[in-house]
Amino acid sequence: MVGQRLVQLLDGHPQFRVTGLAASGASSGKRYREAAAWRIPGRAHGGLGEMPVRASDPGALADAPAGIAFSALPTAAARELEPAFAGAGWAVVSNASAYRKDPRVPLVVPEVNPDHLALTSRQETPGFLVTNPNCVAIPLALSLKPLHDAALVEEVLVSTYQAVSGAGFGGETAWDMIGTVHPHAGDEEEKVQEEPQKILGRVSEDGLENADIRISARCVRVPVRDGHLLAVSVRTRNPVSPEEARDLFASWRPQTGGRLPSAPEHPVQLRGDRDRPSPALDVDTAGGMGVTVGRVERCPVLGLKYYVLGHNTVRGAAGAALLNAELLCTEPWAGLRKVPRRGRTQALPSTT
Amino acid sequence: MVGQRLVQLLDGHPQFRVTGLAASGASSGKRYREAAAWRIPGRAHGGLGEMPVRASDPGALADAPAGIAFSALPTAAARELEPAFAGAGWAVVSNASAYRKDPRVPLVVPEVNPDHLALTSRQETPGFLVTNPNCVAIPLALSLKPLHDAALVEEVLVSTYQAVSGAGFGGETAWDMIGTVHPHAGDEEEKVQEEPQKILGRVSEDGLENADIRISARCVRVPVRDGHLLAVSVRTRNPVSPEEARDLFASWRPQTGGRLPSAPEHPVQLRGDRDRPSPALDVDTAGGMGVTVGRVERCPVLGLKYYVLGHNTVRGAAGAALLNAELLCTEPWAGLRKVPRRGRTQALPSTT
Amino acid sequence: MVGQRLVQLLDGHPQFRVTGLAASGASSGKRYREAAAWRIPGRAHGGLGEMPVRASDPGALADAPAGIAFSALPTAAARELEPAFAGAGWAVVSNASAYRKDPRVPLVVPEVNPDHLALTSRQETPGFLVTNPNCVAIPLALSLKPLHDAALVEEVLVSTYQAVSGAGFGGETAWDMIGTVHPHAGDEEEKVQEEPQKILGRVSEDGLENADIRISARCVRVPVRDGHLLAVSVRTRNPVSPEEARDLFASWRPQTGGRLPSAPEHPVQLRGDRDRPSPALDVDTAGGMGVTVGRVERCPVLGLKYYVLGHNTVRGAAGAALLNAELLCTEPWAGLRKVPRRGRTQALPSTT
Amino acid sequence: MVGQRLVQLLDGHPQFRVTGLAASGASSGKRYREAAAWRIPGRAHGGLGEMPVRASDPGALADAPAGIAFSALPTAAARELEPAFAGAGWAVVSNASAYRKDPRVPLVVPEVNPDHLALTSRQETPGFLVTNPNCVAIPLALSLKPLHDAALVEEVLVSTYQAVSGAGFGGETAWDMIGTVHPHAGDEEEKVQEEPQKILGRVSEDGLENADIRISARCVRVPVRDGHLLAVSVRTRNPVSPEEARDLFASWRPQTGGRLPSAPEHPVQLRGDRDRPSPALDVDTAGGMGVTVGRVERCPVLGLKYYVLGHNTVRGAAGAALLNAELLCTEPWAGLRKVPRRGRTQALPSTT
Repeated sequence: MVGQRLVQLLDGHPQFRVTGLAASGASSGKRYREAAAWRIPGRAHGGLGEMPVRASDPGALADAPAGIAFSALPTAAARELEPAFAGAGWAVVSNASAYRKDPRVPLVVPEVNPDHLALTSRQETPGFLVTNPNCVAIPLALSLKPLHDAALVEEVLVSTYQAVSGAGFGGETAWDMIGTVHPHAGDEEEKVQEEPQKILGRVSEDGLENADIRISARCVRVPVRDGHLLAVSVRTRNPVSPEEARDLFASWRPQTGGRLPSAPEHPVQLRGDRDRPSPALDVDTAGGMGVTVGRVERCPVLGLKYYVLGHNTVRGAAGAALLNAELLCTEPWAGLRKVPRRGRTQALPSTT
Repeated sequence: MVGQRLVQLLDGHPQFRVTGLAASGASSGKRYREAAAWRIPGRAHGGLGEMPVRASDPGALADAPAGIAFSALPTAAARELEPAFAGAGWAVVSNASAYRKDPRVPLVVPEVNPDHLALTSRQETPGFLVTNPNCVAIPLALSLKPLHDAALVEEVLVSTYQAVSGAGFGGETAWDMIGTVHPHAGDEEEKVQEEPQKILGRVSEDGLENADIRISARCVRVPVRDGHLLAVSVRTRNPVSPEEARDLFASWRPQTGGRLPSAPEHPVQLRGDRDRPSPALDVDTAGGMGVTVGRVERCPVLGLKYYVLGHNTVRGAAGAALLNAELLCTEPWAGLRKVPRRGRTQALPSTT
Repeated sequence: MVGQRLVQLLDGHPQFRVTGLAASGASSGKRYREAAAWRIPGRAHGGLGEMPVRASDPGALADAPAGIAFSALPTAAARELEPAFAGAGWAVVSNASAYRKDPRVPLVVPEVNPDHLALTSRQETPGFLVTNPNCVAIPLALSLKPLHDAALVEEVLVSTYQAVSGAGFGGETAWDMIGTVHPHAGDEEEKVQEEPQKILGRVSEDGLENADIRISARCVRVPVRDGHLLAVSVRTRNPVSPEEARDLFASWRPQTGGRLPSAPEHPVQLRGDRDRPSPALDVDTAGGMGVTVGRVERCPVLGLKYYVLGHNTVRGAAGAALLNAELLCTEPWAGLRKVPRRGRTQALPSTT
Repeated sequence: MVGQRLVQLLDGHPQFRVTGLAASGASSGKRYREAAAWRIPGRAHGGLGEMPVRASDPGALADAPAGIAFSALPTAAARELEPAFAGAGWAVVSNASAYRKDPRVPLVVPEVNPDHLALTSRQETPGFLVTNPNCVAIPLALSLKPLHDAALVEEVLVSTYQAVSGAGFGGETAWDMIGTVHPHAGDEEEKVQEEPQKILGRVSEDGLENADIRISARCVRVPVRDGHLLAVSVRTRNPVSPEEARDLFASWRPQTGGRLPSAPEHPVQLRGDRDRPSPALDVDTAGGMGVTVGRVERCPVLGLKYYVLGHNTVRGAAGAALLNAELLCTEPWAGLRKVPRRGRTQALPSTT
C-alpha cells in the first residue's frame, strides 16, 4: 500500500525519477505490473508497469549509482536491508519502523524537526538512513509542535480512529472490519507512545535528547478506507486556552527553511465545524499532505483537547518519506558528504 | 429505535404487560403497525401491531389505571409530559434526558445505585419519575463502579466509538456515516462528563451528593449498527494495577439485593483477547444486557486504562429503563406509597 | 448533493460563470455558505460561499439577463419552476425528472444523442428545457449505445449496486445502510426501464421515435459513497460475442462533433481485470466523467453480459447537466434562436 | 467460518453429539480453542474448546466408530479426504464443492429434493457422500422450487449481493470491501449457473436427470457481514403472474415427510414491504434457517422477478449440511445399509 502510494507520488515528481524498483523474492524478475496488482485509485503503477523488479539487495542494483533508496519494507526485512543499502552508499529514506528508535537515526517530520538530519553524521556508513514516524505519530507530532514550542507539552492522551489502509492490503480481513471496530492488536500503541518524544526532542552536538512527555495511546481500527482521526488531550506546563491554541495552530509555520515541492504551505489546517475533521471530507486536504485540526476545546482533565486527522498512507507514510527525501535536497543537507546529488537517481525497495 | 427495543423487551416479559401505547400527534389514532414501520430485527411490533396508539397525555390514558409509564420521548416532549404523567399518579420510568440532572430525580443503573430510588420521596407528585443515564454513561458507570468502590475514581478520560442506532432511525444520514467517522456534533460529551458523578454519588437523608470526579469525553460516531465501544483511562486516588483492576471487575457483583428478571448474573464481563471487545462479536453478550471489559492495562498518564462495550439501545437505553421498572417491583421499593402494584399495568409513551 | 457537485464543476469552468444562485424558501436571502453546509470533499461552496441565494423564480432573477439555468430541483418544484424559467427566456438545463418523458423535451447524453436537441424546436416558450437522464440510465445508455448501433439491442436486464449519494444528503439513514443493502423503495426501476428507449430513439422531422427495447431493472442501494455499479445482460437482434462487444466498446467514439470541455476523450473505458470495475478504485475515472466497463462475457440467457460503473453525482447528474450546457454552446445548437449567447450568464436553481 | 457455524449449530443438538474434531496439518494435536480463534458471536467453540483436534484422515479417527463426518474442507482437501472417509464407512455430509457435480453424489436441499439421497446407492464405498449446494444456489433453489413445480422454470437471471462471510475469515481484505463492492473474482457464477439444475432434476432408477434450465449469474461481493441477497428474474414455460407466484411461495411446503429438528416450518417466508428483504433485518429469520422472498413483481423481460435472501453460512452452508445429516436420520434413509445408526457418533473434519 505504501509502496504504491509512493510510486504514485513519484509519478511526475519535479526532482526525482525512479530508476529502479526492488522487492523481495517472489516478485524479483517480474515486471512491476505482474509483480503487484495495482490496488489504489489513480494511474496504474504510476506509469512504471513495465519496469522490471529487482531483488532487494544493493548488489542487484550495482549498475544504479547510489542515490536515494526509498524503503517501504516490512520491519524484519528493513532491519537487514537498510544498513546494507546505507553501507553501499545509498541515502536510505525509510518508512519502516526498524531503526526509528536508534539514536543515530533521525526520525523526521520536515516541518517539525528538519535539524534532526544532523544525526546522520553519527552513522558510520558511506550512505545513511533517515526514517519517518508511524502514521499516527506524524499527525500527532505536527499538532503537538505548535503547542510544545509555546507551552511545553507534558502529558498526552490520544485515542485513534484508524483507517484500514494502515494495515496494508492484507492487514485486516473484511469480516473483522465490516460494520464494526476493534482495538488494534499490534504494537501501534507503543509506537505512538514513544515516537513523538524523539521527534519533539532536541539535537545538539551531544546527540539527541528526547522531549519529556508522557503519552498514552489507544489505537482502534475503524471501517474507513483512508485517514486516521485522533482525539487528543494535552496537558502543557503553561496553561493554554482553546483560543490561544487555535491561534497557535493557525499561525504556526513549517520549520523548513524553504518550501519543499510536495509540502503544503500550511500543513496544519484549522476547521471550526462541530463535526469535523471527517475522514471522508478532509482526508485529501492539500493533496493528502495536510493534517486537519478541529474542535479545539477545554479538556476537564488535561486542560486542552482537539481532533487531528491525516491521510495515513500519504501524509503518514509514503508522502512522509518523500518529504524527507525532498528535505535532503535542500541546504544545508544537500551539501553533506553523503547526500546524493540532487535528483540523480533513486531506487525503491518495496514489498508487493 | 429505543421505543421499538422496549416493546421488543416487553414482549413476553414475566412481570409486565403492555396495556397502552402513546405517541405524539401524527401517530395518535393509528394502529401501532401503521404508526411506525418496524425497523429492528425480531418479531414485528413485539406482537402489538394491532394495538391503537393513543395521544401522549395522561388524560388520553384515563381508562388505564396508573401504572408504570415508560418514556422514550424526545427531550422537549419529555420535559412537558413526564411531570404530567407523574402528576396523574404514574411511575414514570424514563430514558429521556430532560430530568436526569434534577436532584430529586434518581438517575439509576440498578446494579450500581439502586438506593438512589429513595430520592423519589422528594418528588411531590402522586406518581414519580425515575431516569436512566445516557447510553455511554451506563457502560462507563458500570465499569467505574468496581474501581470507585475500591480505590476512589478521581479523573476519567473517555473516547467513544458510538454506533449509529444511538441517534435513532433518522439521526445520521448514510452519506455522513458510510466509510467514515465523525465527531459527535451534539451535547453527548456533556452528558457523559456529568452523569457518572450523579450515578456514583451518595444519597443520604440530606439528598444527593455527587461523586467528586473530573471526566473528559470525546464522542465519535462510527459506522457500526449497535454497540458503543469506550476507551477509558482512569486515575484513582489509590493506585490500582491492571491485575488488581481485572480482579475487581471479575469479582464485582451487582448491588441489587436479588436478581431482576432482565438482569444478567454478571453485568460486567471480562475478556482477555487483544482485539476485544468487538461490537460485532460482543454486543449481544447476555442478551445485550451485559457490558464487556477488555484490555485492562497501565495508562502512562492516568494510571489505568481499559475498553468497555455495551449495547447502546438495549443495555444503554430500553433495557436500562426496563431494569429500572423491574427494580421498582422489588423490596423495599414495591412497598412505597407511590409505586404501582406489581405487574398490573403500564403504558408506553413513545415517539415513532 | 447534485447542486454542490454542480457548483464544484462550475468552479473555474472555461466557459461558464455563475451569476446567481437560487433556492427554495428557507434558504432564500441567506448567503450560500449559510444556506447550505458544504458536505462533499473539495473547495467549500466552489468559492461562492458569499454569494446571496435568491428565490427560485424568474422574477427574482430579473436583473440577470436570461442565460443558462441549471436545475437540480426536486420533482415537484421542477414541474412548476422549469417551465417558468423557460417562459422567461432561459435555457433550462435540468437534472430533475419532471419533464424527462415529455416528447418535446430532449433527454440527452451528449456523446450518445446530441441530435435530440432538435426537439427543443417543439417547445413554444422563449427559452427551452433540456434534461439529462437518471443516474443509472446514463451509464446504461452509454454502454448500450455501441452495441445498439452495431447489433440492435432488444432486451436488457440490469441489476444495480447504487451508492448512497444518489439519494442526496438526507435520502438514506445510516441505520438503513450500515452493513446492509436493500431494494430501492422508490420509482428508480421505472426510470431505468423507460429512459434508455428515449435516449437511444430517433429524432426526425416527425419528432421522437423511441427505440424498441424491453428493459427490466432491479435497483439496490449499497453502502458505497459514490458510484453506481450495474450488472447488465443484453439480447441483441444480431448476436454479439464478448470479443466483438469488447471491440465495440473500445472503438466507440462520442457522437458529439467536437470535444466538450468537460467531456473525457473516451467516455467508455474498458478494463480486463476480473474484479473490476470497483466503485472505490474506478469511480473517479476521467475525473468522474467516464464510465468503466468490465467483465464482458457470454450470458447464458440473453447472450451478452457485462458490468458498467459510473460516478452517480458527477457523470450521472451534475456533470451530465454540465455536458448538456456545453453541448448547447457548440454548433449547430449555439446558432439556434433560443440558445443563450455563449458563456455569458447562468443561474443555479438548487435545493439545499 | 462454516466450521465454526457448524460447531455452534451442533452445540446442544437433540440428535447429534460431536465425538471428534479433525483438521489439516498445523492444527492437528492442539486443543480446538488453541487451533482456531473463535470469530463469530455466541458461545466460544460451541463448548468444545478443550477437545483435541485430530488429523483429517480416517486412520486418525479409527477409535471413533464410523458415523456422520461433516466436512467443511477446502476443495482440494475434500477431493482427497471425503472418499477416504466414505471408504472407511463414514456417512460424509459435505459442504465442499469437490463432488457436487458427480452424478452419483446427491446434491441435496432437504425441503426440495430429499429423494435424491437414493443416488447414494450408486456409490460403491462402505460409507457414502452427500453434499449440499453453494450458498447462493440454496436460496435460489428454495425459491425456484415452488415455481418449477407449478410452471416449469426455463430461464433464470440472478444477480447477487453477497456477504463477506461467504469467503471465510481470510477471504476478502478490508481494503477491498469497506465502502465498496466488487464483482466476485472466483468461480461462484459457474456454481450458481450449474447447481440448481441438479437440485431440481429428477432421480429415477436410471439415475439423475438434470432439469432443463438456463441460468445466468452475476455474483457481487458487498460490505455485509452475513446474508446473501439475490435479485432473480425467471421465465417459466407456463406464465405465472406475481399474484400467483406469491400464492405459490406462501402455500409451498417442504418436501421432507416430517419435520427435521433444525428445519423451520416455513423455510420460504414471504414479505410485502417494498425495501425488504434486508440482510440486516431478515438474515436471522427462523434462526438463520429460513429464506425470505419479497418484491414479487412482473419482469418486463423474463416474466417474473423477485428478491430472495438467505443466511449464507447458516442456511447456505453449515445449516444446510446439518439438515442433510438430520434427513439421513429419517425414514427411509435411516434404514439404508450404509446409514450410520442414529445419533451415535460423528466427527467434524474442518479447516481452521
